[in-house]
Amino acid sequence: MPPAVALPSYRATVRAEWVDYNGHMRDAFYMLLFSLAGDELIDLIGLPDSVRKERRRSIYTLEAHLNYLHEIKEGAQVRIDMRLLAHDVKRIHLYLEMFALDGQRAEPVAASEQMLLHVDTSGPRSIAFDPDVAARVRELAEAHAALPPARFAGHVIGLPAVTRRHAT
Amino acid sequence: MPPAVALPSYRATVRAEWVDYNGHMRDAFYMLLFSLAGDELIDLIGLPDSVRKERRRSIYTLEAHLNYLHEIKEGAQVRIDMRLLAHDVKRIHLYLEMFALDGQRAEPVAASEQMLLHVDTSGPRSIAFDPDVAARVRELAEAHAALPPARFAGHVIGLPAVTRRHAT
Repeated sequence: MPPAVALPSYRATVRAEWVDYNGHMRDAFYMLLFSLAGDELIDLIGLPDSVRKERRRSIYTLEAHLNYLHEIKEGAQVRIDMRLLAHDVKRIHLYLEMFALDGQRAEPVAASEQMLLHVDTSGPRSIAFDPDVAARVRELAEAHAALPPARFAGHVIGLPAVTRRHAT
Repeated sequence: MPPAVALPSYRATVRAEWVDYNGHMRDAFYMLLFSLAGDELIDLIGLPDSVRKERRRSIYTLEAHLNYLHEIKEGAQVRIDMRLLAHDVKRIHLYLEMFALDGQRAEPVAASEQMLLHVDTSGPRSIAFDPDVAARVRELAEAHAALPPARFAGHVIGLPAVTRRHAT
């Protein structure tokens, strides 16, 4: 078994206004929770609101992929765990899994991977991480490198269904 | 040039509450607009709310992929065009492109592909389309078959960036 790593995480409760005509959380609000979780990660790499404003730096989302595995309903409490799959001088490949905290299921209810880009907001244009932020990104990536493969990363959407995995 | 096809579409205006600390629409609300566009498609294949309730049928999202191409701001008017890339007896591979209607750019501001599943909501469990719905799905798919390749479909998220295209 790989060593236990405390992953950055985010907790939330499913609101009534996120439920659609199917009686479960609408697909887009899973993305909202993954997006809010990503905000926590942005703080964690040293880019909280004050630093973003002072340095004119921020993080933009380039791409997102979502896998919907189980429906969840109003009032459900969820936890989203995050890990870095890869990074370069200005990008982070982030992987997230959402778990329902009702004790019914150990499997995630949804998973997402996202490509995040560091930007100079005065452009906006892409720019390399500042050294202190780059050090935190590297630190997190190294802590997450020993984890087992990200189960729902690397999918291509298609019929028939195809899965291709990253080397990372 | 391929014959012009009138694509199903959906229009919306970016609301203030969808804008994040970057001063542009948060990634998750692009997904909300794509999701609301998808609802129009569900009506169009013969599954409006009344039919969903009467037959205990609905459409669930299995997977979604989003490409963020340009930022858009509060008050921006957008149009989302939809087309079917593929389908089988119970699934639809839907492709969507979002355009800003400010006349500044012919290119989409975002694109999405989604795998949608037809379900019997009394399970819920997946189930083949009813014959009338299957006929409408086929009709749409045939109308969209002559279109040029979907430019932002078939991506794998990764570093270095990789693109793999579907045969469809």
